[in-house]
Amino acid sequence: MLTYLDALKRILVGRPFRTERAKVQPLPQWLALPVFSANALSSVAYSPDEILLTLALAGVAAVALSPLVGLAVMVVLLVIIASYRQSVHAYPSGGDYQIASENLGKTAGITVGSALMFDYVLTVAVSMSSAAHYLISAFPALHGGQPAAAALGVVVLAFLHLRGLRRGGRAVAIPTYAFVGLILLMCLVGFIQDLGGELELAPSAALDIVPAAEFQAGLTGLAGAFLVLRAFSTGAAALTGVETPASNVKAFRPPRARNAATALLVLGIAATVMTMAVLYLARATRVHVVQVPAEQLRLNGGPLPADYVQMPVISQLAATVFDRGNVLFYLVVAATGLILVLASHSAFTAFPALASILATDGFLPRQLRTRGDRLSFSNGVLALAGAALLLILVTRADVTQLIQLYVVGVFVSFTFSQLGMIKHFSRLIRSTPNRRLRRKMMRSRLINLIGFILTATVLAVVLVSKFVFGAWIAVAGIFLLGLAMYSINRHYQQVARELAVEETGQATALPSRVHAVILVSHVRKPVLRALAFARASRPSKLDAVIVDIDEEETAQTLADWDRLKIPVPITVLASPYRDTTTPIINYIQNIRRDSPRDLVVVYIPEYVVGRWWEQLVHNQTALRIKTRLHFEPGVMVASVPWQLASSDAVRKFQELS
Amino acid sequence: MLTYLDALKRILVGRPFRTERAKVQPLPQWLALPVFSANALSSVAYSPDEILLTLALAGVAAVALSPLVGLAVMVVLLVIIASYRQSVHAYPSGGDYQIASENLGKTAGITVGSALMFDYVLTVAVSMSSAAHYLISAFPALHGGQPAAAALGVVVLAFLHLRGLRRGGRAVAIPTYAFVGLILLMCLVGFIQDLGGELELAPSAALDIVPAAEFQAGLTGLAGAFLVLRAFSTGAAALTGVETPASNVKAFRPPRARNAATALLVLGIAATVMTMAVLYLARATRVHVVQVPAEQLRLNGGPLPADYVQMPVISQLAATVFDRGNVLFYLVVAATGLILVLASHSAFTAFPALASILATDGFLPRQLRTRGDRLSFSNGVLALAGAALLLILVTRADVTQLIQLYVVGVFVSFTFSQLGMIKHFSRLIRSTPNRRLRRKMMRSRLINLIGFILTATVLAVVLVSKFVFGAWIAVAGIFLLGLAMYSINRHYQQVARELAVEETGQATALPSRVHAVILVSHVRKPVLRALAFARASRPSKLDAVIVDIDEEETAQTLADWDRLKIPVPITVLASPYRDTTTPIINYIQNIRRDSPRDLVVVYIPEYVVGRWWEQLVHNQTALRIKTRLHFEPGVMVASVPWQLASSDAVRKFQELS
Repeated sequence: MLTYLDALKRILVGRPFRTERAKVQPLPQWLALPVFSANALSSVAYSPDEILLTLALAGVAAVALSPLVGLAVMVVLLVIIASYRQSVHAYPSGGDYQIASENLGKTAGITVGSALMFDYVLTVAVSMSSAAHYLISAFPALHGGQPAAAALGVVVLAFLHLRGLRRGGRAVAIPTYAFVGLILLMCLVGFIQDLGGELELAPSAALDIVPAAEFQAGLTGLAGAFLVLRAFSTGAAALTGVETPASNVKAFRPPRARNAATALLVLGIAATVMTMAVLYLARATRVHVVQVPAEQLRLNGGPLPADYVQMPVISQLAATVFDRGNVLFYLVVAATGLILVLASHSAFTAFPALASILATDGFLPRQLRTRGDRLSFSNGVLALAGAALLLILVTRADVTQLIQLYVVGVFVSFTFSQLGMIKHFSRLIRSTPNRRLRRKMMRSRLINLIGFILTATVLAVVLVSKFVFGAWIAVAGIFLLGLAMYSINRHYQQVARELAVEETGQATALPSRVHAVILVSHVRKPVLRALAFARASRPSKLDAVIVDIDEEETAQTLADWDRLKIPVPITVLASPYRDTTTPIINYIQNIRRDSPRDLVVVYIPEYVVGRWWEQLVHNQTALRIKTRLHFEPGVMVASVPWQLASSDAVRKFQELS
Repeated sequence: MLTYLDALKRILVGRPFRTERAKVQPLPQWLALPVFSANALSSVAYSPDEILLTLALAGVAAVALSPLVGLAVMVVLLVIIASYRQSVHAYPSGGDYQIASENLGKTAGITVGSALMFDYVLTVAVSMSSAAHYLISAFPALHGGQPAAAALGVVVLAFLHLRGLRRGGRAVAIPTYAFVGLILLMCLVGFIQDLGGELELAPSAALDIVPAAEFQAGLTGLAGAFLVLRAFSTGAAALTGVETPASNVKAFRPPRARNAATALLVLGIAATVMTMAVLYLARATRVHVVQVPAEQLRLNGGPLPADYVQMPVISQLAATVFDRGNVLFYLVVAATGLILVLASHSAFTAFPALASILATDGFLPRQLRTRGDRLSFSNGVLALAGAALLLILVTRADVTQLIQLYVVGVFVSFTFSQLGMIKHFSRLIRSTPNRRLRRKMMRSRLINLIGFILTATVLAVVLVSKFVFGAWIAVAGIFLLGLAMYSINRHYQQVARELAVEETGQATALPSRVHAVILVSHVRKPVLRALAFARASRPSKLDAVIVDIDEEETAQTLADWDRLKIPVPITVLASPYRDTTTPIINYIQNIRRDSPRDLVVVYIPEYVVGRWWEQLVHNQTALRIKTRLHFEPGVMVASVPWQLASSDAVRKFQELS
């Protein structure tokens, strides 16, 4: 079994890379900027949609508010970027997790680490689901295949990362430039058409929106205000990924911090311009998108045609501005789909790296720490892919459902990171005598304070407005992951304390005598080998035991024992309840009780087989006995393997690979 | 983890029973007869339904043929019973599996064993699904809960058998008598009403049957003949379970064989009378049952009411003869449901017993051989329950779907068993000088020959007429199970040959020297314990190895080694691909190559933990290394456990239980 898996792994993953290949070169600015912006920019592909369809719950009039909601999101974005430009200079070597844990302590660090990991999972799930949506908007024949396409995308990305796909340079930069260029081109053409009165209506403009029952009167009262907040909260998905340049300062060329800060600024401006332009055009062309088209949309008062497929906003705009079927339409849709895949790719780089840092700090299992055969953190890649696949399959790749869980994590991390920066600057100010420098630091701290207040407020808004719609799952998920990290950390620390060696004397305390016990069922070659091995290590005392399960078999074994004149005494243990383990454990415990300073070595003959199912028909009892024996102090278990003929193939294969 | 499962098992299953309790007393005839007939009689509950609804595919006129089809099934039943009355005398100690394997060889034995096991699974699935159907016919409010009820029934039965439920005496006999009595009473009252012209029409008589597209012209041509054969094949489900008295001769009181033969005769007559009476009454009251009511039934030309629930035939007859709501209606339905549960119970007794015999003969894994804590063959019970649950969930407890897989197995077993008996008598005849005895044997052989021809024909009819409807699954299932049994047998035989000890000399060949190797990662207490244990067994050579994965950690370990002045040389193994296992294996292989006659003992320090998740964060590498080392001949693995504080609770619990 293991062998087949090993062979499969070798075929899929390829031959291992040497550790030296892990070193990476910093990127020139023209590549670093797009590579670390792709994640943040990709949200232009879905955040306008989510603002529009949330407002659409209150009917078509409410949708007109969308540019205002977008503007609010963009203000938050620019404040966050200003804050991160501070962090980049203060913490060039780490991200939010380091800022939080160094300034606010372990609990804050765990919270931020857990929140970020949770949000990376959602980045993959949301981006791939949205990418699948764009794929379908270009090829409506694939309608219904959205979950399959998104899942397939995750599998392929995970596979490429297991094979050692790196952060990338040109391969990421060029599609990102193309995306920004094409969206800006589309918006520009659209504005010119609009000014000239030639802008057509979107394909969905003819559809009527049926407002939800509680919004028959439009966007009024408390419910209306709440809905606007919810639209803002879902639109805040546009803010995910902005921290990427700040956590990769080391990958920029010197002056690293300044280059990273510039990248943040450019990214912020690009995201703002694109989001606002898309929202403006969506309003001008009367794009009507809703959560459940079949229920919320009407065509001339009647139901929608059964084959109606709701296209994402950018696809609708491209179809309106360039005409559907035009090559530019396909280019816009393809570039948008591609940037979403790149956003996932960026999460596939960031998540395993963060997991490895958390594992190094003792918050996650050590398996996540080391690089696999091809130098990727393979266990981290697998964990991310598994979690994202689960979300995609559970929500059937529905971006609107997924977006409810999104944003919580990233705002937890923003908020703690700002708070950490405030503490950082406060400490620095206290220890800085130079007044001019102090004043500069106080200005920086003010920016972080504004950032903190704003992100904390947004976090509260997000939690309140989306809690029942799914944010509770994010809160629970982040809490449970944090709890697991806390428990693992406590466990590792306890173990380290328990096992630490202080005095020199401990190394030399030897057991006084060795008592060897051989477990026998039948007199067969493995038992004789176990006997030979046991005798070769010359124990102070050596005896064999057999548990009497089947009277006839026991008698046969004893007869064979005599016939072969085996020079070791054999004891028959009674088992009134047909259980092999308990009589053996009791026997061993008695030996320990009689001479507590002796070492007891239990020799267990084991069959080594070649086929997976053969494992099922052997060694089950041996496994149970070994597990139980491990709980006895002063008892060592020696497995004496007997290689059956069928195991040869496996050994040969293992030697080859 | 294991501990929680152990504790749960103790709570659910109870304290173990001593082996002596396994002995059972033979039953007096008045109890043995119903106990071993329940399985066969229970098919009266569903086989008339299946005959009727298969014929209904050709419209209402075809349904009138049902008594004829039933008669054909009953003729086969009586011939089979005549044959088994032979077997009972010739093989009082075994069933069809023994007859086939002793007279026809291993392959036939495997085939019959596999076919019987497959059919026992179906007995449980069909009976519990049908019982759930009766439950719903009494309480229509439970409509839709059929799969859940059937599955729950299987779980409860399995649970009772794990707790040591036995074959039973009165508890099985009384419901069986009640079932036979109530059905006969119902039929008698029905006949009297019919003679007096007072018999009402069944609740479903008013519904029209829509014939399938290919039978618009009624039951004509080849398709018509084929459908009649199919009705016969599904009705043949009435024949399952008749072998039960023949495979339990030992449970009858002496004269055992004669009593078992009498039981077979009584059972055959009872089944025939009941089936024919039910079919006659169903025709007289115009019961209309079909496979898919919503498609195949019409009410006054229009569709059925949405809440229409099709009742089984016996429920409809009880409602017609006694009036629905009458206490006798509920008694008939309850007795029928109960006999179906008893049929499952009988499979839960027979399947694990057969599996244990097959395991003893080396055809199934040894785990199936031994009795569990409460003396039931617990692994067999679990296997049966799992397989039956799978079938119930896949078919949503649809008896008509399940019945397509049924009967194949039992007829394979009938046919081989008859053939085996023919061979048995032929051999006996050859060695019998007494002419009168010989003539008697030749008469017996003739009965078995007729039985063989008939059952082989029926098997062919069943295979041909139901193949595409599901019998292929049965054929594939029986074949695969047989293949597995064949492979397991070959494996056990190979192992036995490979491991057999012939000469006395083998026991004493000792390795010349012992080379001990200790695997080190950090200098912690478990490593020091491993060192102490290794030194206590005084090896000829002792050294430690560390694999260099992380430069810093390796340096720290070496420094600690020096600081503590550990008197054992330590070797650093390079690992350019960050893999721990391969460098160690290569190192061990080199030792073996240099001195092939030495025994190499690899000491691996292991952590013993108390919580299941702690296992995930430790010992993963140790496990991989141990698995690989087991393939090296002449290498013994010694696990040196270190009990972490958290493991204490587990040990204490294990000592209590």
